[in-house]
Amino acid sequence: MKRIENLQQVMRNKEISAALLMQHRDLYYYAGTAQPCNLFIPAEGEPVLFVRRAMEMTKKDTWLDNLQYSAKLGPIKEMLNKSCPQGGKLGVEEDVLPASLYNRIKREFEGFELVNISPEILEQRAIKEPEEQEELRETARLFKVAHEAIIENLAPGISEMELAAEVYKRLRANGAEFITYHRRWDNTSTHEGLIAGAKTAWQISGLAMTVTGIGNHPSLPWGASAERIDEGDMVVMDIGLNRAGYHVDMARTYVAGNPSTLLKERWDAVNKIMDAALEKAVPGNTAGDLFSAAESKAVDLGVREYFQGWGDMQGHYIGHGIGLELDEPPTLVRGNEQLLTEGMAVCIEPKLIVPHWGAVDVEDTVIINSHGPEILTPVSRELF
Amino acid sequence: MKRIENLQQVMRNKEISAALLMQHRDLYYYAGTAQPCNLFIPAEGEPVLFVRRAMEMTKKDTWLDNLQYSAKLGPIKEMLNKSCPQGGKLGVEEDVLPASLYNRIKREFEGFELVNISPEILEQRAIKEPEEQEELRETARLFKVAHEAIIENLAPGISEMELAAEVYKRLRANGAEFITYHRRWDNTSTHEGLIAGAKTAWQISGLAMTVTGIGNHPSLPWGASAERIDEGDMVVMDIGLNRAGYHVDMARTYVAGNPSTLLKERWDAVNKIMDAALEKAVPGNTAGDLFSAAESKAVDLGVREYFQGWGDMQGHYIGHGIGLELDEPPTLVRGNEQLLTEGMAVCIEPKLIVPHWGAVDVEDTVIINSHGPEILTPVSRELF
Repeated sequence: MKRIENLQQVMRNKEISAALLMQHRDLYYYAGTAQPCNLFIPAEGEPVLFVRRAMEMTKKDTWLDNLQYSAKLGPIKEMLNKSCPQGGKLGVEEDVLPASLYNRIKREFEGFELVNISPEILEQRAIKEPEEQEELRETARLFKVAHEAIIENLAPGISEMELAAEVYKRLRANGAEFITYHRRWDNTSTHEGLIAGAKTAWQISGLAMTVTGIGNHPSLPWGASAERIDEGDMVVMDIGLNRAGYHVDMARTYVAGNPSTLLKERWDAVNKIMDAALEKAVPGNTAGDLFSAAESKAVDLGVREYFQGWGDMQGHYIGHGIGLELDEPPTLVRGNEQLLTEGMAVCIEPKLIVPHWGAVDVEDTVIINSHGPEILTPVSRELF
Repeated sequence: MKRIENLQQVMRNKEISAALLMQHRDLYYYAGTAQPCNLFIPAEGEPVLFVRRAMEMTKKDTWLDNLQYSAKLGPIKEMLNKSCPQGGKLGVEEDVLPASLYNRIKREFEGFELVNISPEILEQRAIKEPEEQEELRETARLFKVAHEAIIENLAPGISEMELAAEVYKRLRANGAEFITYHRRWDNTSTHEGLIAGAKTAWQISGLAMTVTGIGNHPSLPWGASAERIDEGDMVVMDIGLNRAGYHVDMARTYVAGNPSTLLKERWDAVNKIMDAALEKAVPGNTAGDLFSAAESKAVDLGVREYFQGWGDMQGHYIGHGIGLELDEPPTLVRGNEQLLTEGMAVCIEPKLIVPHWGAVDVEDTVIINSHGPEILTPVSRELF
């Protein structure tokens, strides 16, 4: 309930009369259930959870007391009219509601001005409570399982897809969910994370400025492919894991055999960039400071050309926040003035992507503590 | 290009001046690429693909000639103003565009009335071309792999999650993608399909009126759980598969040991309902006719109470269309007057869900041919 009270405080400060939340992750955060519901939160007073389906299951999960069993907007409108007879601002999640539903809400709630309340929600969600931090630590432990699957199965001749299948099998049997949540309407990437060998890791698909792999087919240009790993090839594993609703994102680079001198040098460079970014991961610095520190280090090391991509597919970021969704604020992009605060969880992911050669990638999820970052990744930072 | 010409014909009939398509499945259908693009289609004349990122990869995939490298709306607006100086209707995908992007388009394209063009797109996509039918047949073959994984691994003591892990390992190594596409902004279900035993199969989560399982955690009340299968338990496998962009949805029911008489009777009933629905799967009948025939048969057999769910979680449908997305028109729901046409692909999925007992579920994907349905499922219709 503290979460809702905090949001209500923000709403009153911004003169938002009420909020109507419909997105499953926001519902889970404020109501404790991911069943289909509409959550009505007045700026002052008790929230009401309108349960669209599965009342009994929802009751078991939610901590809210005031439930109504209805999928319609009518009863919500009545309630809104009662609590705000003069109209006012109604907060909705404009970044995720589809236009057709948004237009229906607009017609139904005539007299109210719709405003986007997602930034306020995401700002609140960015600071992880102690219980949330525990969930993140527990999810991070699964990365050890994924790592062991690679160590045991990576050998010249195996395909990226076969390796992905082995990793998946172990993760799933250990409680990973096979969906990761993205607050992006047009996300097309797979939910298994990414396995990319030397033949594919340098090719950057348009879906994100990172190691993307090329996938199997034009219908999904992302992820593990049928390409086989050769002796001495590097392999990147970059996995976003969801367990119990909390995501952790991590990457390591492996070699099928003995690494070349060049690979060792580039791995070393990526690690130094990681150290430079980690040093800035303390409360009071801005999200953009992490990027600047990483970029400066890449310049110093003479690898700026391949830092976070190459050519016109080069990203100006060094990571992102994480929690109930894989990619949350703060985004660690160039110039982002958002201050880092104790309790934020961020992923830091420097990489070098070199055309016709491959990539080296390392990523850790960290919690920002008062004294510095707590690294959640349970796998040492080595070239395996 | 024939696909775009057909859409242009429909646009001219409905006096839509131009369309701006942004959703990845629609882009793949009309342009042959799933890279992030904006596709501008005037009612008359040549379409232009605005490539947002990864120009080189997009060029390899698309069959369109007229490409521009830009992620901005400005150049599209210029083009639109040139082709329709008097303004008019601009078709956008209102069912999937998020409100914030929709509002931005509305502001940017002032002078044009935005209309929803998704129904026209989905109507066209509902009729599968011969090449698309081939893709569906090929995807369906993967169901044999999933079936064999169940036959080899189902034994008393295994958990739903462990069984799911075995099924998915095989599917992935054989080319299944680890994402299924849903034209629903709030889809939260996993992408691995569903494995549910007797303890969970009767519990219907709010995410859909079907066998849903209960999942592992309130953050995702869907799918395989850590519950173990006991001797004699029924197990439902219901899997939506995506391979090369084309989905097939299929279900079978298994027993860990010897089936009870009651289970055999209920399996028999579900099969008779399936036969009744299949008989109606011919061109000229309506989508609703399939539901009516199935429901009548359920009444005749005395199982109406458990048909497609129970209590207030009972669905009034018998299936759905399928193709580039898992759930497309025509929806086989009560009263749907949409006519079945040669070339449509639909999933027919009768089930009985019995409180505190379990469920029997069977599902086949079929193509509507002139003479009747072609069943794609490569697994016989038995209780295994």
